[in-house]
Amino acid sequence: MEINGEMEQRPVIDGPTNPVVSSLLSDMYQFTMAYAYWKAGKHLERAVFDLFFRKNPFGGEYTVFGGLGECIHFIANFKITEDEISFLRSTLPSSCEDGFFDYLRGIDCSDVEVYAISEGSVVFPRIPLMRVEGPIAVVQLLETPFLNLINYASLVATNAARHRFVAGKSKTLLEFGLRRAQGPDGAISASKYSYIGGFDATSNVLAGKLFGIPLRGTHSHAFVSSFMSPDEITAKTLPHSNGSDSCDDFVSLVQTWLSKLQSVESFRGSFSETSQSELAAFTSYALAFPNNFLALVDTYDVIRSGLPNFCAVALALHDLGYKANGIRLDSGDLAYLSVEARKFFCAIEKEFQIPSFGRMAITASNDLNEETLDALNKQGHEVNAFGIGTHLVTCYAQAALGCVFKLVEINDQPRIKLSEDVTKVSIPCKKRCYRLYGREGYPLVDIMTGENEPPPKVAERILCRHPFNESKRAYVVPQQVEELLKCYWPGNSGKEREPLPTLEKIREKCINHLNQMRPDHMRRLNPTPYKVSVSAQLYDFIHLLWLSEAPVGELQ
Amino acid sequence: MEINGEMEQRPVIDGPTNPVVSSLLSDMYQFTMAYAYWKAGKHLERAVFDLFFRKNPFGGEYTVFGGLGECIHFIANFKITEDEISFLRSTLPSSCEDGFFDYLRGIDCSDVEVYAISEGSVVFPRIPLMRVEGPIAVVQLLETPFLNLINYASLVATNAARHRFVAGKSKTLLEFGLRRAQGPDGAISASKYSYIGGFDATSNVLAGKLFGIPLRGTHSHAFVSSFMSPDEITAKTLPHSNGSDSCDDFVSLVQTWLSKLQSVESFRGSFSETSQSELAAFTSYALAFPNNFLALVDTYDVIRSGLPNFCAVALALHDLGYKANGIRLDSGDLAYLSVEARKFFCAIEKEFQIPSFGRMAITASNDLNEETLDALNKQGHEVNAFGIGTHLVTCYAQAALGCVFKLVEINDQPRIKLSEDVTKVSIPCKKRCYRLYGREGYPLVDIMTGENEPPPKVAERILCRHPFNESKRAYVVPQQVEELLKCYWPGNSGKEREPLPTLEKIREKCINHLNQMRPDHMRRLNPTPYKVSVSAQLYDFIHLLWLSEAPVGELQ
Repeated sequence: MEINGEMEQRPVIDGPTNPVVSSLLSDMYQFTMAYAYWKAGKHLERAVFDLFFRKNPFGGEYTVFGGLGECIHFIANFKITEDEISFLRSTLPSSCEDGFFDYLRGIDCSDVEVYAISEGSVVFPRIPLMRVEGPIAVVQLLETPFLNLINYASLVATNAARHRFVAGKSKTLLEFGLRRAQGPDGAISASKYSYIGGFDATSNVLAGKLFGIPLRGTHSHAFVSSFMSPDEITAKTLPHSNGSDSCDDFVSLVQTWLSKLQSVESFRGSFSETSQSELAAFTSYALAFPNNFLALVDTYDVIRSGLPNFCAVALALHDLGYKANGIRLDSGDLAYLSVEARKFFCAIEKEFQIPSFGRMAITASNDLNEETLDALNKQGHEVNAFGIGTHLVTCYAQAALGCVFKLVEINDQPRIKLSEDVTKVSIPCKKRCYRLYGREGYPLVDIMTGENEPPPKVAERILCRHPFNESKRAYVVPQQVEELLKCYWPGNSGKEREPLPTLEKIREKCINHLNQMRPDHMRRLNPTPYKVSVSAQLYDFIHLLWLSEAPVGELQ
Repeated sequence: MEINGEMEQRPVIDGPTNPVVSSLLSDMYQFTMAYAYWKAGKHLERAVFDLFFRKNPFGGEYTVFGGLGECIHFIANFKITEDEISFLRSTLPSSCEDGFFDYLRGIDCSDVEVYAISEGSVVFPRIPLMRVEGPIAVVQLLETPFLNLINYASLVATNAARHRFVAGKSKTLLEFGLRRAQGPDGAISASKYSYIGGFDATSNVLAGKLFGIPLRGTHSHAFVSSFMSPDEITAKTLPHSNGSDSCDDFVSLVQTWLSKLQSVESFRGSFSETSQSELAAFTSYALAFPNNFLALVDTYDVIRSGLPNFCAVALALHDLGYKANGIRLDSGDLAYLSVEARKFFCAIEKEFQIPSFGRMAITASNDLNEETLDALNKQGHEVNAFGIGTHLVTCYAQAALGCVFKLVEINDQPRIKLSEDVTKVSIPCKKRCYRLYGREGYPLVDIMTGENEPPPKVAERILCRHPFNESKRAYVVPQQVEELLKCYWPGNSGKEREPLPTLEKIREKCINHLNQMRPDHMRRLNPTPYKVSVSAQLYDFIHLLWLSEAPVGELQ
């Protein structure tokens, strides 16, 4: 297929083919159903499925859509290999006929069409993120992989966006989750979709390599503990940053600065003896990275040891024309410690006339999440960058987004999935979806219509109805109308294919979309739900179909 | 390396190499530290790290250890490729010297030793799951991938074991989490480690293929909705199970049975009109899988439609010598519905003299977790098998296990990581670990000793001390002593290598270990903590080292 060639040109968005993403990455029942459809001669019937979720995660009122590129990559490469067919044959009941395996051997997604909202968009419950059309047996085989690829991607992108919202636009956000993520690929997905959701960098080197995400990292507590004292440092020479000259004994220069610091009247008493192990580690790290000196200062005691040791090294670097990057705090009262660190840096700037020493970067990590960021904001802090791991990548606050994949039409017959729980009733029909914008440029409401209804028009009044609640309805006069579902996989339809954007473009779209939302939808406490509606015509049809399908009860 | 050849013989445990598990699956700071170690001439210093966790997950008092095989596989294949070196060179500061990249090019794990508790064991806080020794720069590169491979594997195996504990040994447990898992590999790991933790089967076809885990699956609601009425079934012939004869019109046979059911006096009123769409779907499914007929009965209404439709098809199958498998319930009050279904099956057994029809299998799914299983048990239910997805695979109740990797010795010098939070203080020294068993065969306590202390002896009294709490100590006379850390990767030590067992053996070990525990450690409510201790000698040493490292405060 032509698209394969084209997609291989897009390593940034698609990454290398993930070989665990085989056509067997599916639930067993998709294959048993495929057999039953085939056996009934029903496998080629044209079906339409919607992929959507029912509730925004994390108690919020918005979701970021991620994973579309991977789904398109999946169908572009969808093919069941001989080896996989042998496995299926050994697993399915032996009564399954050979013709079925011949059928499986021949299928691909050339007859499937995928319409989707653009990746990185802000999305809402019940509006299809994707509409997938094609032969029912094939489309069902796509259900599980699509759900797998979208559920977590969207969840973690949303989580990242929420962390960005609390941290504020000026802060640097670092994804540090590799060690706590759910397996290697969970970690790589976490890095990718956290970046889309607004993070600035990751610690995950492989994700950096695969997707071009900026990398960040310096050293750990073990690095500090691995040193005993500055005596063990043998290579002590550091050239001046301008190359002009060299300092023969950087270790002594650091010691000199530490003594100077200890003799400053106003610092006296706050520290007298700092850890020699830590001082050696910092000095060594600076010798290795004189242009990128950032030290983890909490191995022993931030105030009494880490900060003065860091400053002694930073000042020694300054003598040689280098500029230290800053510190990282990984324990304790981050608000208090960051404020104390800032005061100390400013005092040094003043005492030794070192311009901008007071603006030294402070990074904080240690089990951060939305709540702790919010608490830090309330307490007041001096942190410039946050490293966030466990809570971000595992989506600790809510570990799953419940996307579902529902049949809405077969052979041009609309289908509805009923449930005693009205929130679980699916919205039937092949639909079109629009986002209507108001006078101030904010999105006002999303509306679903039947495939063949005329689209909403700018400046023309349209009735938007709640899909299930008769009394909830409103007229809207849109200032702008955006059709949400675009054709990302045309199959044999001859339609034009929407190109897959790069990761950077998706991230940009996401950040722009989030900024465009009316603030009351975005706030953490009691956000206003964004409205999702159906056209009057679709409303009437849903309720007609509902009545015709629902069993009539007997009160006894 | 010889082991590579040997490991390729073990596809069941190691699976195909997961290519996302590259040597770059690590935090950036492991590489910046490697450079700083190299630059300081310190990279070959021999370090010992412990991998352990501090708290059992899910509010319980035990954890199942998973992921060891993948770690050993990782180090067996550890090698930084030219391509990866180019990437690192482009990412690290340009001041990094060429010699470092030559060094990286040459490293492997031939000089690393790994000692570990056997995979599938029940394990406890603070006892090292793994002890990793080797050149400090190399061992630090292993930190992040090991934590990644073990944290989630152990968490989900523990979660599976906890679900098994509540469900009881007689129930069948099915892992249905693929669509909600954290990425493709998260799903595959979930299937693998849920199986180790005591689940019986998975829906994930790829995991079934990779690891030989039994597969289960039948059909979804969409399958039911895709049919309109039995009129659309054209191929109606079903041969008798003994091959003797054929039924030319299985659809009519089903209709006949449905009418018979509707005419039974005692059933009358409970259903009069069942869904024709559902009846068609069930009939079709039975025609495809006459030996494996299991139907999802809640698309319309379990009592009024799903159950009678299922029974009509099951009875028609019975006429032809087949035995239906059962039903699946995926919504509503599972306790009530399963009891009603059981009553109905028993009534049919009696009414039509169909032996064992009453013992039809009932599978339940729909957002199940430990709490809902417990609630079902309390209400009384007739479910034989549970399908568990989201809560199992995302570890919803606690989405991360906080394994850490701490330096405990370098150049034969013990190291301690202090913290103001005593639970975060690490236990220094290269250690040995033992499990001591009591008279009834239960494990009593785990004890850590220094590397060179004499091991505890059977029938000899030994003092077991809490590592940090002076007053907590007890004498124990073990009836059996088990050394916990075994050599899984001998490096150049010449020691014998413990073989990696198959997945089935790991699962068996896990189930046996869980059964062997004293019941009060295992209960869901207020379980008794299992005791973890240090020898008297190690206790004294920890506290000596602690005092020597801790800064002395000044009260102001």
